Amino acid sequence: MPPIPPIRQGSELPHTQQGIRRRNLSLVLRTVAAQGPLSRAAVASRIGLTRAAVSTLVDELVRTDLLVEPGPGQRSTAVDRPGRPGRPGSALALSERGPVGIGAEVGVDHLAACAVDLNGTVRAKAVLAGDNRGRPPEPVIKELTRLIREVTEAARTAGLRPAGLGVAVPGLVGRDARTVVRAPNLGWTQVDLGQHLGDALPPYVDNEANLGALAELWLGGSPTRPTPDSEPASESAAGGAIDAAADGTTDAAAGGDLAPRDFLHVSAEIGIGAAVVVDGRLLRGARGFAGELGHVPVRPEGPDCPCGGRGCLEQYAGAEAVLRAAGLPPGEGRVGQLAALADGGDPRVRRALRGAGSALGIAVSGAVNLLDPQTVVLGGALSRLAPWLLPAMERELRRRTADPERPSGASVSVSRLGSDGPLLGAAHAVVQAVLDDPASAPPPPA
Amino acid sequence: MPPIPPIRQGSELPHTQQGIRRRNLSLVLRTVAAQGPLSRAAVASRIGLTRAAVSTLVDELVRTDLLVEPGPGQRSTAVDRPGRPGRPGSALALSERGPVGIGAEVGVDHLAACAVDLNGTVRAKAVLAGDNRGRPPEPVIKELTRLIREVTEAARTAGLRPAGLGVAVPGLVGRDARTVVRAPNLGWTQVDLGQHLGDALPPYVDNEANLGALAELWLGGSPTRPTPDSEPASESAAGGAIDAAADGTTDAAAGGDLAPRDFLHVSAEIGIGAAVVVDGRLLRGARGFAGELGHVPVRPEGPDCPCGGRGCLEQYAGAEAVLRAAGLPPGEGRVGQLAALADGGDPRVRRALRGAGSALGIAVSGAVNLLDPQTVVLGGALSRLAPWLLPAMERELRRRTADPERPSGASVSVSRLGSDGPLLGAAHAVVQAVLDDPASAPPPPA
Repeated sequence: MPPIPPIRQGSELPHTQQGIRRRNLSLVLRTVAAQGPLSRAAVASRIGLTRAAVSTLVDELVRTDLLVEPGPGQRSTAVDRPGRPGRPGSALALSERGPVGIGAEVGVDHLAACAVDLNGTVRAKAVLAGDNRGRPPEPVIKELTRLIREVTEAARTAGLRPAGLGVAVPGLVGRDARTVVRAPNLGWTQVDLGQHLGDALPPYVDNEANLGALAELWLGGSPTRPTPDSEPASESAAGGAIDAAADGTTDAAAGGDLAPRDFLHVSAEIGIGAAVVVDGRLLRGARGFAGELGHVPVRPEGPDCPCGGRGCLEQYAGAEAVLRAAGLPPGEGRVGQLAALADGGDPRVRRALRGAGSALGIAVSGAVNLLDPQTVVLGGALSRLAPWLLPAMERELRRRTADPERPSGASVSVSRLGSDGPLLGAAHAVVQAVLDDPASAPPPPA
Repeated sequence: MPPIPPIRQGSELPHTQQGIRRRNLSLVLRTVAAQGPLSRAAVASRIGLTRAAVSTLVDELVRTDLLVEPGPGQRSTAVDRPGRPGRPGSALALSERGPVGIGAEVGVDHLAACAVDLNGTVRAKAVLAGDNRGRPPEPVIKELTRLIREVTEAARTAGLRPAGLGVAVPGLVGRDARTVVRAPNLGWTQVDLGQHLGDALPPYVDNEANLGALAELWLGGSPTRPTPDSEPASESAAGGAIDAAADGTTDAAAGGDLAPRDFLHVSAEIGIGAAVVVDGRLLRGARGFAGELGHVPVRPEGPDCPCGGRGCLEQYAGAEAVLRAAGLPPGEGRVGQLAALADGGDPRVRRALRGAGSALGIAVSGAVNLLDPQTVVLGGALSRLAPWLLPAMERELRRRTADPERPSGASVSVSRLGSDGPLLGAAHAVVQAVLDDPASAPPPPA
């Protein structure tokens, strides 16, 4: 397998003639992505360039398989999107055969990989359930590499070109975007994934909560897409944290058609993480370690936490704490088990989830008072437990964040992406890099 | 008195030939402000424009009294800054006779106004002590207007030109930057200062914690400047919250020569506020209400708070709570009284301040885990109480924010600006607007 080219995260294009051309290619591509299908004339009028200039740019984007422009009388399936009826004729749309972003996820109880095309559609996916706690990095990364290879090959077979690799991990990632500084639930410290992911190099590595929040920003406002062409999962994800994104939680989704641009994204797998998005940008912190909501004190004299503190949110709302409060043994399949038992009416599990919801509400109240976000989004595994967490959480928020301009306190919505958020965010980070600099995408075969 | 011209906060200069010229004027002025004194040639090489282009821009800045360029053999006093020995010859420096920013502050127990020149030097200052709680806006604004007029006239007498008015208030300010939405400690709601400050219009109004943090960003890295030309205070500020900035707390200051650009600024007058500065920019929140650290829950089942919550930080570390814990009656001069008693060794006051420090540490730990700031800065009245607050606060931070990369937890430094921060920030917001768009400053008399 040829190496996956690097992605240029936030690349600063040079201020040269060539840099301006690349910026304009991005402008055309992003305009079609946001508002397409559009004719060449419509693109020109929206971005304020001449039709001739736009036509040269469009020709290059069509030639490199980033845009398609079906002839009169044809209809592109790419334009058959919900709420956007396909128009006959020469309307530009994003290609379904061009670059794809490869995403991978190291979860505490699963591994996953997927390929996402420019339209945001998942074109291949592979999942491997299994407890990764305490396992050394090498065998885990070997299994992950196999999943990445599977989805990459599936994408190539479908005529797509992998444009880069994003990796979500349940831990703190260094500013180099490749080193896992610390992942307590895996037991990893200072693991350089750039070195380990040998033939899929160099990956862009980020914290799962950050990528979940970015997925919400990029994809959260639209209905979750089905995965018609996805590969079957490599192994059954029995009881694992990954489910089809279009599961029952979609009904609870409160988002509109526009994704919010100022929000606090709260997610969980085993630990509890958060990400602060301000004006469409992720707040990463001075060292890149922002978002550690799980270690915000809820009751300062509460139970000891492995972090060294006491009464941290994770001691009340982390998966282990909820299982303990419900009288259940720790183990695999925590979230699925809790959701099933709560759904079945188990009073101990429901009480434990109410307690977790209260603790979440207390910690999130502090964050809301400090940050004044537009809304709070529950994502990751928390979205599956939302029906039982939300009432207690919202009661605390009403008490602690209400003001005359917002009498019922800060609003909470539930991510439509569910547990797939981090994986989709990892793949979509690559897609965003292509939209930012189309010239960086791998060229079509000669 | 002629009206003070408006300041253009964050004005977007137009993309026209004139806009480019104004941007380049700003570039020259900011380069001299940051690195001066500099020759014309040195400015040209630093900003990458030709010497001819820079000379035209410099001529305009000298003509409008924004820059001075003493002839050979002369020395400008403006260049005699600490650590920057004045050089003889034609070195450009910021003018001491050009525009000044007028700052004003509505405090709960004082009113103040000042004039700050382009160098950041306070050129005039007036303070009026007195309890403003429960007073209607009109008489308070009338007194404030008098102070503003005093410092404005003093500045004009010294040959300076007021370029705008910034106003710090102890409450939430609307996105219009003129309406006090809610100031619980004054008892004000929906007070339009733009309308009330009739002849000093239109002011730029902001929350005191925000302006204190901006002052820290703009001025905090340099030693506090003396105020050689300042007017005597209008009335004695006996026991009030305003003191000379260069008071004893300067010894506790831990800042280096470079102000941090990612920090959490925690300040207090009666309430407790915070401001989050990320990459040199203030995080304002979706509604402009970010920074309400005083209502972060410390003990979720603690005392009722007027905000509707329970166990908020203000119930443990607000001035009233500390006075109550020390067995003292509520009243004026709280911070001064507490500092004097603690300094004298009063055990009840010291114990009360230790309790307040612990509560601050718990709430700030949560903020640090969420935001990963470079440092935490104690400002406003808290800086005077730092010697007694810090040990308990730092103990909580060590326990709750330590990690392998930072074993002693988040660092706390004490603002060198002290209680003057919000007032200086208000005046300096005007100076920043002049540095951003020098052409907007009032022209010198013909």
